[in-house]
Amino acid sequence: MNQIGNVGIYPFLAEPFHCDFTNHLFYGHLGNHLLNAADYHSDDRDFGMRYLMPIHKTWVLSRLVIEMNEMPLAYDQFYVETWVDSVIKFFTSRNFKVTDGADKVYGYGKSTWVMIDTDSRKPTNILDLKDGAILQYLETQKECPIDPVSRVNVKHQPQVVKTIDTHYSDVDMNGHLNSVKYMEHVLDLWDVNWYRKYHVQRMEIAYSAEAHGGDQLKLYVEEVNVAEFRVSIYKINNDITDETEVCRSRVVFAENQS
Amino acid sequence: MNQIGNVGIYPFLAEPFHCDFTNHLFYGHLGNHLLNAADYHSDDRDFGMRYLMPIHKTWVLSRLVIEMNEMPLAYDQFYVETWVDSVIKFFTSRNFKVTDGADKVYGYGKSTWVMIDTDSRKPTNILDLKDGAILQYLETQKECPIDPVSRVNVKHQPQVVKTIDTHYSDVDMNGHLNSVKYMEHVLDLWDVNWYRKYHVQRMEIAYSAEAHGGDQLKLYVEEVNVAEFRVSIYKINNDITDETEVCRSRVVFAENQS
Repeated sequence: MNQIGNVGIYPFLAEPFHCDFTNHLFYGHLGNHLLNAADYHSDDRDFGMRYLMPIHKTWVLSRLVIEMNEMPLAYDQFYVETWVDSVIKFFTSRNFKVTDGADKVYGYGKSTWVMIDTDSRKPTNILDLKDGAILQYLETQKECPIDPVSRVNVKHQPQVVKTIDTHYSDVDMNGHLNSVKYMEHVLDLWDVNWYRKYHVQRMEIAYSAEAHGGDQLKLYVEEVNVAEFRVSIYKINNDITDETEVCRSRVVFAENQS
Repeated sequence: MNQIGNVGIYPFLAEPFHCDFTNHLFYGHLGNHLLNAADYHSDDRDFGMRYLMPIHKTWVLSRLVIEMNEMPLAYDQFYVETWVDSVIKFFTSRNFKVTDGADKVYGYGKSTWVMIDTDSRKPTNILDLKDGAILQYLETQKECPIDPVSRVNVKHQPQVVKTIDTHYSDVDMNGHLNSVKYMEHVLDLWDVNWYRKYHVQRMEIAYSAEAHGGDQLKLYVEEVNVAEFRVSIYKINNDITDETEVCRSRVVFAENQS
């Protein structure tokens, strides 16, 4: 595991079975690699889940945006650089840069994480841990030239575009639906024919509540512009009839070069 | 990439977001790593998809069985050893051994692959390529002490246990439903509560037809023994009302140690 100052640099390979029918890495798998890089980076500094779980705390992803000029192709080796540029009480802001290890920049990401207490499920002050030791790991000079997750509300119509069931394989180590699985569910709203014409250029996702395996998800979609959509996901618990919003997403597609 | 003779040895990490709520690597992700190891091993010998695709041929997975004593835990480094022990006309038989790099053997796998012509979709004689060069890569001495995929038929009842839609993220580089996604769909037949009590000890899957994104899948399940099931998956094409069997699976669960 390499690093330059407080920036961690982690190598990944665009595995052939993680690529779509156009031979490009799936957005969800890229998202997964970013989350892994985040975890390795915090683990290397002893703020990862391995340190946190025994003391009943964990990181929860609150917001993530990924914006790509280009996606790695099958078998491409690529590198995820990641660094934390701010810590404010319950929140850290973590950036990502995806490169080929030389001059090519595939794209960038930005994320916000909350540290929670796993017993109370409430946010916990990050600076209370190890006398604020996390502050020594900040990197504030490195550029991440993409817009943060936008704040615009989804003005959804009452009709549901799609309802899906969730299963065992949607649930991660924390016992909740895996953040990346939501990305897959959102991107699966469009079919293979759509992806013959378009690819994802930017994807934002903001999480507001946790869902569990077995919860039903309802997806509402609003077309904002040509090839730009907002998607809002609600859950229906097994034993509750209320709908709760679990996340909202914005997806911007670009036309494929032919 | 290491190797000992004709055995390739590839390192993998049980990535935290590839692990289930018990902290063990998901079976589907393990399956994916085996397929990747197979691809790296054949690619290293210039028989991989990168060599085959330009000459309009590809490998298609026909049968896979995985039997595990123990699954890697989150953050465990593990190694997939893989070798081809026979080539007969259209088919290769490829084995897997999963270890911790030292004395621990997590488990084994066996697989059968067919080489097909991507234009005619028909099997093609592997020994016609490069004057049978693949024969120099056989390893016939190394042990793989698990039973091959069983041949028993599914005697399914007419009722469908579950019908699922398939999507963009189910489709791999070949344009067909990803072999590993079938494993996920099968294992998602049981809910989180089931997996609190049981884990997969052995899983077999035999593929008989290709399905495409958008096809609907019907899953038939038969309980053979306590915690042993056969699952048969049929597809319904968008434009065809016939059902075609695409694969059948056998899953043997073992009780979790508490």
